[in-house]
Amino acid sequence: MVKKIIMKRILVIHGPNLNLLGTREPGIYGTVTLSKINSALKKLSKTLRCHTSFLQTNHEGEIVDAIGKSKGKYDGIIINPAAFTHTSVAIRDAILAAGLPAIEVHLSNIHSREEFRHKSLISAAAQGVIMGFGPKSYELGLMALLDIIA
Amino acid sequence: MVKKIIMKRILVIHGPNLNLLGTREPGIYGTVTLSKINSALKKLSKTLRCHTSFLQTNHEGEIVDAIGKSKGKYDGIIINPAAFTHTSVAIRDAILAAGLPAIEVHLSNIHSREEFRHKSLISAAAQGVIMGFGPKSYELGLMALLDIIA
Amino acid sequence: MVKKIIMKRILVIHGPNLNLLGTREPGIYGTVTLSKINSALKKLSKTLRCHTSFLQTNHEGEIVDAIGKSKGKYDGIIINPAAFTHTSVAIRDAILAAGLPAIEVHLSNIHSREEFRHKSLISAAAQGVIMGFGPKSYELGLMALLDIIA
Amino acid sequence: MVKKIIMKRILVIHGPNLNLLGTREPGIYGTVTLSKINSALKKLSKTLRCHTSFLQTNHEGEIVDAIGKSKGKYDGIIINPAAFTHTSVAIRDAILAAGLPAIEVHLSNIHSREEFRHKSLISAAAQGVIMGFGPKSYELGLMALLDIIA
Amino acid sequence: MVKKIIMKRILVIHGPNLNLLGTREPGIYGTVTLSKINSALKKLSKTLRCHTSFLQTNHEGEIVDAIGKSKGKYDGIIINPAAFTHTSVAIRDAILAAGLPAIEVHLSNIHSREEFRHKSLISAAAQGVIMGFGPKSYELGLMALLDIIA
Amino acid sequence: MVKKIIMKRILVIHGPNLNLLGTREPGIYGTVTLSKINSALKKLSKTLRCHTSFLQTNHEGEIVDAIGKSKGKYDGIIINPAAFTHTSVAIRDAILAAGLPAIEVHLSNIHSREEFRHKSLISAAAQGVIMGFGPKSYELGLMALLDIIA
Amino acid sequence: MVKKIIMKRILVIHGPNLNLLGTREPGIYGTVTLSKINSALKKLSKTLRCHTSFLQTNHEGEIVDAIGKSKGKYDGIIINPAAFTHTSVAIRDAILAAGLPAIEVHLSNIHSREEFRHKSLISAAAQGVIMGFGPKSYELGLMALLDIIA
Amino acid sequence: MVKKIIMKRILVIHGPNLNLLGTREPGIYGTVTLSKINSALKKLSKTLRCHTSFLQTNHEGEIVDAIGKSKGKYDGIIINPAAFTHTSVAIRDAILAAGLPAIEVHLSNIHSREEFRHKSLISAAAQGVIMGFGPKSYELGLMALLDIIA
Amino acid sequence: MVKKIIMKRILVIHGPNLNLLGTREPGIYGTVTLSKINSALKKLSKTLRCHTSFLQTNHEGEIVDAIGKSKGKYDGIIINPAAFTHTSVAIRDAILAAGLPAIEVHLSNIHSREEFRHKSLISAAAQGVIMGFGPKSYELGLMALLDIIA
Amino acid sequence: MVKKIIMKRILVIHGPNLNLLGTREPGIYGTVTLSKINSALKKLSKTLRCHTSFLQTNHEGEIVDAIGKSKGKYDGIIINPAAFTHTSVAIRDAILAAGLPAIEVHLSNIHSREEFRHKSLISAAAQGVIMGFGPKSYELGLMALLDIIA
Amino acid sequence: MVKKIIMKRILVIHGPNLNLLGTREPGIYGTVTLSKINSALKKLSKTLRCHTSFLQTNHEGEIVDAIGKSKGKYDGIIINPAAFTHTSVAIRDAILAAGLPAIEVHLSNIHSREEFRHKSLISAAAQGVIMGFGPKSYELGLMALLDIIA
Amino acid sequence: MVKKIIMKRILVIHGPNLNLLGTREPGIYGTVTLSKINSALKKLSKTLRCHTSFLQTNHEGEIVDAIGKSKGKYDGIIINPAAFTHTSVAIRDAILAAGLPAIEVHLSNIHSREEFRHKSLISAAAQGVIMGFGPKSYELGLMALLDIIA
Repeated sequence: MVKKIIMKRILVIHGPNLNLLGTREPGIYGTVTLSKINSALKKLSKTLRCHTSFLQTNHEGEIVDAIGKSKGKYDGIIINPAAFTHTSVAIRDAILAAGLPAIEVHLSNIHSREEFRHKSLISAAAQGVIMGFGPKSYELGLMALLDIIA
Repeated sequence: MVKKIIMKRILVIHGPNLNLLGTREPGIYGTVTLSKINSALKKLSKTLRCHTSFLQTNHEGEIVDAIGKSKGKYDGIIINPAAFTHTSVAIRDAILAAGLPAIEVHLSNIHSREEFRHKSLISAAAQGVIMGFGPKSYELGLMALLDIIA
Repeated sequence: MVKKIIMKRILVIHGPNLNLLGTREPGIYGTVTLSKINSALKKLSKTLRCHTSFLQTNHEGEIVDAIGKSKGKYDGIIINPAAFTHTSVAIRDAILAAGLPAIEVHLSNIHSREEFRHKSLISAAAQGVIMGFGPKSYELGLMALLDIIA
Repeated sequence: MVKKIIMKRILVIHGPNLNLLGTREPGIYGTVTLSKINSALKKLSKTLRCHTSFLQTNHEGEIVDAIGKSKGKYDGIIINPAAFTHTSVAIRDAILAAGLPAIEVHLSNIHSREEFRHKSLISAAAQGVIMGFGPKSYELGLMALLDIIA
Repeated sequence: MVKKIIMKRILVIHGPNLNLLGTREPGIYGTVTLSKINSALKKLSKTLRCHTSFLQTNHEGEIVDAIGKSKGKYDGIIINPAAFTHTSVAIRDAILAAGLPAIEVHLSNIHSREEFRHKSLISAAAQGVIMGFGPKSYELGLMALLDIIA
Repeated sequence: MVKKIIMKRILVIHGPNLNLLGTREPGIYGTVTLSKINSALKKLSKTLRCHTSFLQTNHEGEIVDAIGKSKGKYDGIIINPAAFTHTSVAIRDAILAAGLPAIEVHLSNIHSREEFRHKSLISAAAQGVIMGFGPKSYELGLMALLDIIA
Repeated sequence: MVKKIIMKRILVIHGPNLNLLGTREPGIYGTVTLSKINSALKKLSKTLRCHTSFLQTNHEGEIVDAIGKSKGKYDGIIINPAAFTHTSVAIRDAILAAGLPAIEVHLSNIHSREEFRHKSLISAAAQGVIMGFGPKSYELGLMALLDIIA
Repeated sequence: MVKKIIMKRILVIHGPNLNLLGTREPGIYGTVTLSKINSALKKLSKTLRCHTSFLQTNHEGEIVDAIGKSKGKYDGIIINPAAFTHTSVAIRDAILAAGLPAIEVHLSNIHSREEFRHKSLISAAAQGVIMGFGPKSYELGLMALLDIIA
Repeated sequence: MVKKIIMKRILVIHGPNLNLLGTREPGIYGTVTLSKINSALKKLSKTLRCHTSFLQTNHEGEIVDAIGKSKGKYDGIIINPAAFTHTSVAIRDAILAAGLPAIEVHLSNIHSREEFRHKSLISAAAQGVIMGFGPKSYELGLMALLDIIA
Repeated sequence: MVKKIIMKRILVIHGPNLNLLGTREPGIYGTVTLSKINSALKKLSKTLRCHTSFLQTNHEGEIVDAIGKSKGKYDGIIINPAAFTHTSVAIRDAILAAGLPAIEVHLSNIHSREEFRHKSLISAAAQGVIMGFGPKSYELGLMALLDIIA
Repeated sequence: MVKKIIMKRILVIHGPNLNLLGTREPGIYGTVTLSKINSALKKLSKTLRCHTSFLQTNHEGEIVDAIGKSKGKYDGIIINPAAFTHTSVAIRDAILAAGLPAIEVHLSNIHSREEFRHKSLISAAAQGVIMGFGPKSYELGLMALLDIIA
Repeated sequence: MVKKIIMKRILVIHGPNLNLLGTREPGIYGTVTLSKINSALKKLSKTLRCHTSFLQTNHEGEIVDAIGKSKGKYDGIIINPAAFTHTSVAIRDAILAAGLPAIEVHLSNIHSREEFRHKSLISAAAQGVIMGFGPKSYELGLMALLDIIA
């Protein structure tokens, strides 16, 4: 009981097109589905004794809404902004506004891809960045985030 | 009565993360909440004998929707595009399509901030721009807009 | 009957502000309304013996949603990304993820307009591009798409 | 007889290296030869009741000469400027000088190729642009052009 | 009497070529003369109970001189830097050196004009910016400035 | 008498450092002094039956002043903006405001010099540009200007 | 007789599309035809006691050929490179190789046109540049050239 | 015994100035010393049953040497290139040549620092990137690397 | 006899203005004439037992023509594109289309010259590049080419 | 007497806003006033047996005037161009025209400030540059200048 | 004795190729050898009562090593980074890490040389910069440094 | 004997990672080892009657050292700067300082690789450049170099 009260609450945000994981360009993104990634994170949360909630959306506005409401409800954010990485000032501002520690994660290494994917608008607002490890990027992000919050 | 009929109708649009005003990075955005800004504008509308409606949303699409429907319903628009200032061609196009006079306002002076915030995609579609006066930017915008419409 | 079964299904996507066609800056976009364009496409579909569905939205996320669900439901996509042409990596990624042939169309010739409209983020993900023929751009796109699918 | 008089006359211009089609980098340009493309266009011209003339040359000056003499002799131009797309202001100026509607076509989608091929000097002078459909690009161009002239 | 003592003193600076207002490119700058603008500002000053002084000069050095001497003599500055907007680091530095609140105003919306006019060297040193409202820009600037000083 | 009345009046403006001609970097600017250039122009004026006035100044503001007062007093302007060629938006605006035909002249060919001298802010406001002929540039400018005015 | 021997021989080169003068975009290039320009130059040559030869071609190579053979045959070159102004390093090199004085002329002021026309590859190889005076640009060029040769 | 044989061997490389950790700009890099970081990694290696070797050097060449000899001696590399992140093509090439999985780590988030630190020449050659977690970045890197090797 | 049959056939292409070698800017290009270069190459061909053909032209189109016809007639190409190095996409495409090994050679070191000469459009299509050795560049190119073909 | 004749005469120029030293942004420029700097220089001049004259002005033209008249009157120049560092080609040209050795000095290190202050238009015309030592920069400049003149 | 204890210790670092001074491009770097420069500095140190140590190396790493160990051993650094000026972030970081006052000196004025030499990566980390005075640059640097330390 | 005395001495420098040749990315660099390349060069040296010494190092400083000592010891340099091609101003300066003819060679054609590899900092200091011929690049370099020295 007492434990539950002090369990950290983490919001995991998956950006646009990540709902298609597993079938989407598997050469780049791998064959693991999003629900498998979430299950693995759930399992790791148990081990690390934290609580994770998930949001996948293709709507920038819903991500901004969610981050805007996160203060007080969550202790930290893990976000894979996907395509919004390169185009969304609104998400950057939302993270700064929320004031919660946020970790930016990517399945692929964005620096081995097209030039326009090398620049992230989100990174400067995030606590740290982890990329290139496939689904493992999220798990490392969770460990890193709990370490920061602790 | 007769007066009511000729009262100008103004649509005030607040862009992403402005719902968080008051708590969001107060060093940049101040401590006044959005509802306080709206109340002050309401009050000023009475003095200036116009009608103001308000929209705050984190969804670019909803702003485009609202501007798209504004023709005939409103006589002018005051918009603080916030983060969309730097990324939304859709809002720029919506303003051009609506053909109503629009005033772009900002609480902060975007030229004293990060380089990427210096460029506005909206300005060229707006009648005029007012920035750097905190909530007062909106009030000046309202006076300017009524002056243009008159 | 048997024919119906093999009729190709095409998703036609109209981006932001295209709902305003006919009244929106007629010097650039002409006076034909969107419903007239859709009717003409419907009529052409009959001739070409395919089935067309339509989506107009000002929300980038809804376009990404629709493309994400298109695999299996459609055989190809015609998209006029409008303002999102220049700002949406998410739509580009959605097209790549869907793996369906997609044709990018524009009513106007974007190269005769402002500098920032010359660059399309979508083109590299599309099979082909058709622009500058007004509503006819869509019809040519439909013919081209059926040719690719066949 | 009377029909012949009103048949539209179209000049089709093939730029440098297009004489090598069929053997030239077939991964990009396909295996169809230029004479096959011209035959198909001839055939389509009959259906559409117009007259097409053809020019293939590796000399920028010959293209400029031909366009310069086109006024009065032709009703419209279809041009695949090939390599000159990215380097010829003279062809751009020739099109503007001729004052005839011109359609720019490309076999491949130039936006999926090297960065320096993304920019066309010709597009702003053309009525419209069609690219990415192989030989079909020319046929769509012919249909579009007749539609404009009509 | 007592009131006079606490009346705010405002320095209004008009940059190069603004002496020609009324005859200079009226399509961009309107037909109101500078003396009319000053009279209107004088009148508004009475209403707002402040004192305004005026300087028009085509010499950058005289503007720098005036700002350099403004501390102690004035409570705030309204400046339309005109052509110096884009070229004068000296005026920017003068404003920073004076330490008085300064408002940058423009008659036209500089973002609807040539590319080189979009960048202001002055904005980052100003408290706020108002542009696009013709002579009204000054009046809004005066109201904004008094609000800041108060 | 009657002739005098219709003699065109031309204002010749020499920009900064041109007072030093003859001794200043003779490898670039030659050994002819400014007074010799003016004498030659005076002589040519007689032949061409026009009246020339001269201004040499190192002060941008004085050039702007002079151009601002030129309307009605002069029929055209010849200006060698020297160093201000590359830095003065104020002179550009003054020429546009005056509405008189203006010819930009340079002693040297600015395109054979340092990169930063290749770009002129003045050219777009001038009727024409003549450079590279030493003092002869002015004489050609006078002939060209009278031709335009006539 | 003796005079003939010392008459200077000038090669006048007209670049691409200048054969269309008079009908080509008269708003920019005026209504005077190329043969009228040449006649006027012929007439002026008589007055100035020099001999002028003319070449108009749309082929860059022919211009390079002509300049390559000019040494010994001519005393100077007047060239309106037209579209090649912005794209031809070969003409630039030809002028440098020939070692004859060359004057670059333009009918229009290229700095009042599209951005890409502001940069001349030819200017740095020319003795001087004259632009913006319509057909008069050539006549001034001839006078300047003879002055240099003398 | 048998275990030892299959223990993964990891080379940890610390780039220039990292020997000064603890005293060097603690606001950015924290107060933990490099030997503390190495001890913590040693300890974690035991838990994860791998072997870690360490190299700190201010010499780019020694890093290239070490990576060049790593093939066969190590199973993977963790590298904090520090200042070389932005300047060393040689280290990038060394990683590509070695063909071992390499993880780039940074103590600070390089995207929250000076513009020139945002670009990494190393990232495209690395398997993944982890930054912003202080000494924890290394530990996450070790876990990620073992996961990749496994 | 039998030997002749297997002698490699090499096409040597000299770009624009190279016909002027010997007299053209000897400080940069030396005093050797083109025919001397060709003779030396002929002589070397005998030693190396290959056959060389020569083309010098100032017409980009003739180079493209020649390369287009080279397949089957030649085993390799040596090209000094001269001024076309920096402007011809058509020659680049011709080399790619021909599919023969091609060596780009330059008499001078283009990197010690003007900035705009540093970038070659041809290099990426060539097998290799040799520059800076005067006429010797061609001879080295011939040796290199035969080595590749062998 | 004899000494006077050979005493070097140095002109010290202080650019815009330097009259405000001591009160102007003391965090950047320190608290020493300009008259104190001049006194210290005077004192040092005595030690070094040279004569120093001083000019402070906010007018670019006055600096150009002064440098233009310096030849013969002075043996060298020390200039702190302040804001004109980044905008004045006229001062650069004046220094080149005067032909006297000139030393550029700055109180602050311009490379630790805003990006636009990193580039000096004056440096290339100066003999040397000294910055970052507060008032000491002038003294070092005087020593350096006398060393050069000697 | 007591004096010795309070004598300031200065580390003088000479970057790559400076060992070749005297013979290396004397037109740019003069004919004085490095040992002469060091002797002169030694002599000046005596006068100024400080102690100077010298390091010349072509290895970036050795400079970083030396600066890393300088804290406590030295009171300040004079560095001529030579070629490393434009390429070494490691030296910049080393100076920041050491926390000692450092003066950047150059023999030549880097702004009168090639474009790529105008940008220094070191300057922002240095206290001040002195360039263009040949060996005297070091002596001025020593005086400046002692002034700062004092 | 006498011959030995006049044998030219050549220093061959192999830059970073070239020690790994044969195993390093064979798709780009081939399968020949460095020792094989050196043997082949040794053999060729005998034929050409010159003496070659070899240096391979991953340390930029050692290359600078070696070039610095080369004057008098060697008659010319062949250098494959590898990764240092794009980052080392120090090697560029060393070559300029040594004053020996130097040939830059590359195994691969750097223009067919990543964008950042297209720019060489070394080329402008080299006599000539040879690239794209694998190990043969060195042999051609040796022939070219001896030709220059002779």
